[in-house]
Amino acid sequence: MIAGHCTKVPRGINMENLQSGYLFPEIFIRESNHVQKKPHARLIKLGVGNTTEPIPDIITSAMAEQAHALSTGQGYRGYGPEQGNMALRIAIAEKFYQNMGVKGNEIFVSDGAQCDISRFQMLLGSNVSVAVQDPSFPAYIDSTVIVGRAGKVQMETGKYGSIVYMKCEPENNFFPDLTTTPRTDIIFFCSPNNPTGSAASWHQLNQLVEFAKANGSIIIYDSAYATYITDESPRSIFEIPGAKEVAIEISSFSKFAGFTGVRLGWTVVPEELSYSNGYPIINDYNRIVCTCFNGASNISQAGGLACLSAEGYQALSTTVGYYKENAKILFDTFASLGMKVYGGRNAPYIWVHFPGFSSWDVFSEILENTDIVTVPGNRIWSRRGRVY
Amino acid sequence: MIAGHCTKVPRGINMENLQSGYLFPEIFIRESNHVQKKPHARLIKLGVGNTTEPIPDIITSAMAEQAHALSTGQGYRGYGPEQGNMALRIAIAEKFYQNMGVKGNEIFVSDGAQCDISRFQMLLGSNVSVAVQDPSFPAYIDSTVIVGRAGKVQMETGKYGSIVYMKCEPENNFFPDLTTTPRTDIIFFCSPNNPTGSAASWHQLNQLVEFAKANGSIIIYDSAYATYITDESPRSIFEIPGAKEVAIEISSFSKFAGFTGVRLGWTVVPEELSYSNGYPIINDYNRIVCTCFNGASNISQAGGLACLSAEGYQALSTTVGYYKENAKILFDTFASLGMKVYGGRNAPYIWVHFPGFSSWDVFSEILENTDIVTVPGNRIWSRRGRVY
Repeated sequence: MIAGHCTKVPRGINMENLQSGYLFPEIFIRESNHVQKKPHARLIKLGVGNTTEPIPDIITSAMAEQAHALSTGQGYRGYGPEQGNMALRIAIAEKFYQNMGVKGNEIFVSDGAQCDISRFQMLLGSNVSVAVQDPSFPAYIDSTVIVGRAGKVQMETGKYGSIVYMKCEPENNFFPDLTTTPRTDIIFFCSPNNPTGSAASWHQLNQLVEFAKANGSIIIYDSAYATYITDESPRSIFEIPGAKEVAIEISSFSKFAGFTGVRLGWTVVPEELSYSNGYPIINDYNRIVCTCFNGASNISQAGGLACLSAEGYQALSTTVGYYKENAKILFDTFASLGMKVYGGRNAPYIWVHFPGFSSWDVFSEILENTDIVTVPGNRIWSRRGRVY
Repeated sequence: MIAGHCTKVPRGINMENLQSGYLFPEIFIRESNHVQKKPHARLIKLGVGNTTEPIPDIITSAMAEQAHALSTGQGYRGYGPEQGNMALRIAIAEKFYQNMGVKGNEIFVSDGAQCDISRFQMLLGSNVSVAVQDPSFPAYIDSTVIVGRAGKVQMETGKYGSIVYMKCEPENNFFPDLTTTPRTDIIFFCSPNNPTGSAASWHQLNQLVEFAKANGSIIIYDSAYATYITDESPRSIFEIPGAKEVAIEISSFSKFAGFTGVRLGWTVVPEELSYSNGYPIINDYNRIVCTCFNGASNISQAGGLACLSAEGYQALSTTVGYYKENAKILFDTFASLGMKVYGGRNAPYIWVHFPGFSSWDVFSEILENTDIVTVPGNRIWSRRGRVY
């Protein structure tokens, strides 16, 4: 801390209310400390859900071509539509939402799922109630805290008083007991779930849609890992009849195309989805996108379009297969050791049960003994000694 | 409106409180209507502050090279640091903030200035007070409305009750009378101002910094057009002594490098800037960037680095010169017609006085008679018959 002038602007209570570190920077700090202690360690980084495999040439060539075109009078483009290029929006609708009634104008191209989550938080304001899967991707909770909807954190459990945590564990087949789940305005639901790797079945999602409809809730459905689904689980919430009246879907090129650094995602906001007063939410989301965002990079969008070409998509399925094979090796190894292991089948990661240890203890032990960076699978519960 | 199920989620009062259309989509709607009436019109679009000139090849080649590298095992990169690549952060600090004490770790690379404005709004929460220049770029006001700090709109004036509007017009040399300006937590200040084109002098900015310091305010300084400054006006708020204790600066590659579609910007958050409790704001901004954003595209960042190379920067100065020459022609033409015209010298646009007409009236007349799309220069005041 530098001594000197302080402004008179108070720190917002929401920022004060955030728990120490966001998960991924926290992992990075521990990783850096490890490297300082062992400077010659050859780290294997399974920490952040990062991609490692090169992007097929047909896709990077499309991006390079788009970049070069920006040097020509004919090919130069400035601001594009904030919602994304219509050709890409239509291609996304056709590739991922065929026969689900999703139209190009309901697709908003973005710079990634995490950014879209925050834009929705801005849109919805501070007076709505929120439910999340437990465990779940930390951005849902942390962005809920930032916009002031989480309530106070309870030190014993690490949970926020105003957030409904829907237990999704092996005992309940990774799906919440909806008969005991209180009504909330918003339900964050991620499938395949991050971190458990569990994909909800058609039957489960149908229950979820019915539940949201009965309660007048909005499901914010995160399908960022949908292309890793191997079994018959739905790849989109919009496979469920009536979902367009109760759900938006956030998704991404990051994990299926290796675009984690290229930055490209999308959100589907159905025309049918409306507030209690009947006003279409798509209109407000469009307003947020125009005011708080200016569209994804036109080069990234050219790459996205190439991903959805027949040849690009085919090439990517090889990459997806490679990650799946890795996950299978990990799964089989832990299973052969007699450990309880989940995920892997519908996700490129696994979730392993280490009885008797907290998540961060397991993280540290693996890092110190093997130079492998993992993700603590259940950060919240580690506080009361849970053991994933 | 589609009849059917409504959720029970109320529309937030902040979204309700936004005035009809965000300026730029509104311009686009009027432009589209014009094209429908006159399908063969050859429009000249001066509406959104868009760029038209190709990007120098040395820069697009760097982006193409980065794209191709993503197809190789050696060159592939996934998630980068959320704050941007350190080489680019350091290059920005050295190119734009030499001798101002700004360090690379105080630079946060982003996907554009408009997005950074919203991230700051999220950070600051709803309990701070806001001042804006009048007239000013509409995103400051609209994002203030979205986070719930604007108060009610007054129908007669089109202004929001809780925002302090600092008159910046020819009569006061485009700089507010600070002796009568009430204290606010946040002061949005854009120089060169959009839309007037006026750049604040060193003396004026020194006054502003003193004012902020005395009041404990934070200046959010927007220097997106700084590279267009021709005279001795500061190109950064950090040229003013003490500014690091009271200001952040938001800037962009959009207008100086033609990156409007490529999407790249940055924000400087000085380590010295703190809340009233002494806590460094940079820590919270870093948390927002990690939680609500995942970094700018690595391809765009490679382009940004090439912009700041000696050869890249030299090539861009030719492009900047071209836009300046255009602005000069426009300026001289209107001046020769005896009209009051402002801007042009330190900005690639001009601001013209049409006595007796409202801004939208002038916009419509120019569009209908000449097929040229402009920007209504003073949308708020047009309601009470102001005439820019």
